Amino acid sequence: MKRTKKERQQLLQETISENPFITDEELAEKFQVSIQTIRLDRLELSIPELRERIKNVAAKQFEENVKSLSLEEVVGEIIDIETDRYAISIFDVKEEHVFARNAIARGHHLFAQANSLAVAVIDAEVVLTAKASIQYVRPVRLGERVVAKAKVNEISAARTIVEVISSVGNETVFMGTFNMHRSM
Amino acid sequence: MKRTKKERQQLLQETISENPFITDEELAEKFQVSIQTIRLDRLELSIPELRERIKNVAAKQFEENVKSLSLEEVVGEIIDIETDRYAISIFDVKEEHVFARNAIARGHHLFAQANSLAVAVIDAEVVLTAKASIQYVRPVRLGERVVAKAKVNEISAARTIVEVISSVGNETVFMGTFNMHRSM
Repeated sequence: MKRTKKERQQLLQETISENPFITDEELAEKFQVSIQTIRLDRLELSIPELRERIKNVAAKQFEENVKSLSLEEVVGEIIDIETDRYAISIFDVKEEHVFARNAIARGHHLFAQANSLAVAVIDAEVVLTAKASIQYVRPVRLGERVVAKAKVNEISAARTIVEVISSVGNETVFMGTFNMHRSM
Repeated sequence: MKRTKKERQQLLQETISENPFITDEELAEKFQVSIQTIRLDRLELSIPELRERIKNVAAKQFEENVKSLSLEEVVGEIIDIETDRYAISIFDVKEEHVFARNAIARGHHLFAQANSLAVAVIDAEVVLTAKASIQYVRPVRLGERVVAKAKVNEISAARTIVEVISSVGNETVFMGTFNMHRSM
């Protein structure tokens, strides 16, 4: 039974509001239409593309949960966060992040992405870094997208250990262990 | 024997060109005049103040010696450098470097100061950070001036250990051990 456009668009809206992370490909499969049709439906319904939906959801999670800093203070773009458990951010390496002489990303930007994620993930008003031990596994170049994943490993009264692993594609580029102070 | 103004200004110029790091206080003492007189002499002779002279000397040292990055790429202001031995920079903590919520400097700025100093001090075309182990000793606040001192501790074929200690006044605020790759 072929649905009318109106029916399809109504179902599309419900589906996306239940699962904002569904891709256009999955929607096309589900409704047995082309990806182009899904894109046009989204345009007509003013539903943003997946990347934007992820950002919106993450921004909402962030606003509701993160106490230690504001979204603008995070280096990179948070795409998922559950405080005191894990957080994920992406950072696109642009001209201003690399050494002029070799187009390799400067170490402190990768550090800043990881460190601000380690701050954000902790559920406390005041979070400060006490110690960190970091490793640059391979150079990151202009144009690459770095995905950092922070995992909260240990929570004690005043100290929290956050492990951050940053990758480009499947390759690990940076690893850090952050020993964080928190005050409630 | 009291010198004429002309004699004093000539001697002042010679003294400063021999020792650009002499302070106005020391000059006043040396010439038995007031500090105000020294300042007026410098103005008339177009000799910049000590801070500016230090910057000029450091910029010259930098241009002549540092291969791995340009002066603008250093976070903070280099005030002394001898490649493969030591380097010193200062970093003034401003609004844009602190957390909005508590006016405490964000960790990655102290890291960036130390890390870029560790890169600059190494006498090689390409310098990358391999590992770092850092410690934040006490929070640094808006308006404070952080002086970072980098010391090259160990040089082997491809690896160099640089120790950086950053202080505000007499207090250590940050310590880092940077394990650097160099390629000749």
